[in-house]
Amino acid sequence: MPLPPAVITGLQTLLGGRFSQAKAVRDHHARDESPYPELAPDAVAFVRTNEEVAGVVKLCNAHHVPLVAYGAGSSLEGHILPIHGGICLDLSQMNAILDIAPDDFLVTVQAGVRRKQLNLEMKEHGLFFPVDPGADASIGGMCATRASGTNAVRYGTMRENVVALTVVTATGDIIRVGSRARKSAAGYDLTRLLIGSEGTLGIMTEITLKLYPLPEAISAATCVFPSVNAAVQAVIAIIQYGIPIARVELVDETAIAAINHYSKLSLQEKPTLFFEFHGSPRGVQEQAETTQALCLDYGGSGFEWSANPEDRTRLWQARHNAYYACLQLQAGARILNTDICVPISKLAYCIDRARDTLNQSHLKSAILGHVGDGNFHALIIIDPNRPEDMQEAERLNHCIVQDALSVGGTCTGEHGVGMHKIQFMLQEHGADAIECMRAIKAVFDPNNILNPGKMLPAPSL
Amino acid sequence: MPLPPAVITGLQTLLGGRFSQAKAVRDHHARDESPYPELAPDAVAFVRTNEEVAGVVKLCNAHHVPLVAYGAGSSLEGHILPIHGGICLDLSQMNAILDIAPDDFLVTVQAGVRRKQLNLEMKEHGLFFPVDPGADASIGGMCATRASGTNAVRYGTMRENVVALTVVTATGDIIRVGSRARKSAAGYDLTRLLIGSEGTLGIMTEITLKLYPLPEAISAATCVFPSVNAAVQAVIAIIQYGIPIARVELVDETAIAAINHYSKLSLQEKPTLFFEFHGSPRGVQEQAETTQALCLDYGGSGFEWSANPEDRTRLWQARHNAYYACLQLQAGARILNTDICVPISKLAYCIDRARDTLNQSHLKSAILGHVGDGNFHALIIIDPNRPEDMQEAERLNHCIVQDALSVGGTCTGEHGVGMHKIQFMLQEHGADAIECMRAIKAVFDPNNILNPGKMLPAPSL
Repeated sequence: MPLPPAVITGLQTLLGGRFSQAKAVRDHHARDESPYPELAPDAVAFVRTNEEVAGVVKLCNAHHVPLVAYGAGSSLEGHILPIHGGICLDLSQMNAILDIAPDDFLVTVQAGVRRKQLNLEMKEHGLFFPVDPGADASIGGMCATRASGTNAVRYGTMRENVVALTVVTATGDIIRVGSRARKSAAGYDLTRLLIGSEGTLGIMTEITLKLYPLPEAISAATCVFPSVNAAVQAVIAIIQYGIPIARVELVDETAIAAINHYSKLSLQEKPTLFFEFHGSPRGVQEQAETTQALCLDYGGSGFEWSANPEDRTRLWQARHNAYYACLQLQAGARILNTDICVPISKLAYCIDRARDTLNQSHLKSAILGHVGDGNFHALIIIDPNRPEDMQEAERLNHCIVQDALSVGGTCTGEHGVGMHKIQFMLQEHGADAIECMRAIKAVFDPNNILNPGKMLPAPSL
Repeated sequence: MPLPPAVITGLQTLLGGRFSQAKAVRDHHARDESPYPELAPDAVAFVRTNEEVAGVVKLCNAHHVPLVAYGAGSSLEGHILPIHGGICLDLSQMNAILDIAPDDFLVTVQAGVRRKQLNLEMKEHGLFFPVDPGADASIGGMCATRASGTNAVRYGTMRENVVALTVVTATGDIIRVGSRARKSAAGYDLTRLLIGSEGTLGIMTEITLKLYPLPEAISAATCVFPSVNAAVQAVIAIIQYGIPIARVELVDETAIAAINHYSKLSLQEKPTLFFEFHGSPRGVQEQAETTQALCLDYGGSGFEWSANPEDRTRLWQARHNAYYACLQLQAGARILNTDICVPISKLAYCIDRARDTLNQSHLKSAILGHVGDGNFHALIIIDPNRPEDMQEAERLNHCIVQDALSVGGTCTGEHGVGMHKIQFMLQEHGADAIECMRAIKAVFDPNNILNPGKMLPAPSL
């Protein structure tokens, strides 16, 4: 359905040259980091202020035109694909850091601010924002998908690290939710309801985040294990011991093999844990020593650690290169990334099951895990030009998700639902909870203009 | 309005002797820890299973009878007072610990389980549940009010520590929200929407909580300061330094005076910080030493610390006795407890302003603060038989809340809204956000039977 002329005229008046129907611009907003085929919006609206966002939303709402918010385009699940057409609302020019309050450990940013830009600016205040999904995502996108990453085990996810939001509702009202207090018991938690709502309840335009002091010292360590199970048992013991690990990542033997090939290394091709510790110089040394002792108890070997920045980088190099190493397993490949999260005692079982499932497929794959959270990713390598690859990868994901749900886990720990996990929502949450979600959606977005077709399964399913 | 005969008959059939209209039973459910006058429900229903809760809710919903959930009765804000009459749903017999998963650091409990009972049972697994509001509250009540307490600075509040819930909706459906995974990006965060909903959206009957390893070592410390401002500046510096303090409490000079009188002590009557550190033996020593150095920088003196259990208890005795010491300031007194939470940089300003306000009143008062969170309580001593005392205390609270809202804070950090803060909701959140909350309430509870008249201001206000 073409855009109504009144919407085109209205947006041209509102945004001038920042409203575009040009093919090149639309094509630039036609894909994210998921393996879904490209799909261009009918037009792109580049906004710079809350009032402009409100203006765009009002026009779209009046004419029932779908509206999809766009930050950095780093979604892995097709969140930003305009499957019902409409306008792409590009927030990337809303990239100002609005207010830094170092004594309050708070910063307020516009939604288009990127994670790395934010941390670069926070560094001079001796502070950092810890949520690290890997990609240089926009803060708005990270809010929308309830993102987390490698150090959620210590610092939490976006759920725990946002204190307030400015949101443009589907009716074009600009509202503020939350406060600058670090905790509040005043009323329904609209902030948490919006975090993870994937652009379906409102457009988040300004975000107030918690900051943390840069650690005085950081140390890193690696250790190889005879099995995934042994590695996971070691992590459980480390957490049980109360060691405040900042990051603990599992890379399985297939991923290590890929890394060896990609980086010309000769790492032992065994399940490997990568650790990072934050604290005082004495504290990070003690954490590393205790961790080493516990790893040995579970058959760990080759423990290496360092607090020296260069050595830390070297130790973590394999982990940092894992994604690109896997992409290089096959020329022109893309990756379908699974994202289940399970109770940690079930993690080894689920990874073993996933490995069995993956080994029976012709597709190449590797497993990376945020072990402290019970979250892992199977990176399944596909040729984007072969639909049967995508179908097979989806079949594998389906098997892996079934295992997660059977042990009380979730189909997505940190990437969000988008288009990709919608098929599991009813099974994971049950019909009554999905009904609650649909009713909330109807309250916030009665005309279903905000990212329609995402996250919630259609009632007929 | 008397209870409809069909509801009485229905509940008698459902619950037998566990449905009571006896005056003694009703009177026992007629007050909480707030200074509000007693108000008895029309009847009390003691429930033991999810299905019984569903049965009670269905009957009440069919006949539009108000229903107020009751756990331990330790609310400070009138949450459990049946201001529109109806049934008190007493969940205290739902006090089973259903499932302990030590390797997953998770426990599932019925809503009536008390905090101390839970921690007694967790101790043998080397684990604890850290949220500590002081009172031996029920876990259900703590969820309902989004409770926190002295160690939220390290471990978070109920918001951060609940992973899943079983909830009976207003239509009597038993639904499960959340999962056993420690994080999830799958759909709207219904768990967080229910946490802090004060019994107005559904009845939480089972709760899955995060657990933490009991610290290997605990140390405690105290330090006196020349002013509240100096004490708060010291805390900001300590957090900035990255010291992972587990608790940091401020007791002002008036509270210290009350404690001296109550406990026959001779503490310096100056603003005092109470610290607790969790970690390894070496770690807690290092934390205490660094804290001492930072306290000295801000004029702190008389720093004492110990990792010995007896000495720790002695050091914290004053803090532990503060509430009772204040109650003893006046015979037969009750306390109206303010609960603002502000950005930490504004905490000293707000405490100073509160002290000025309080000093101009004839009512006695003291100030206690969860300084790391920016949350403090003015304990205002009133004679419950003098309505003018209550009126004056409300006036003082009003002034203190205005200061909080003027610096971006909240009217309630951890006690909830109940009847007491309802007057500030519109001002704190704005008309649009309150409209969102009302719409959500209407979706979950179309007949307005669940704790009606609490939390949200009536539309006419």
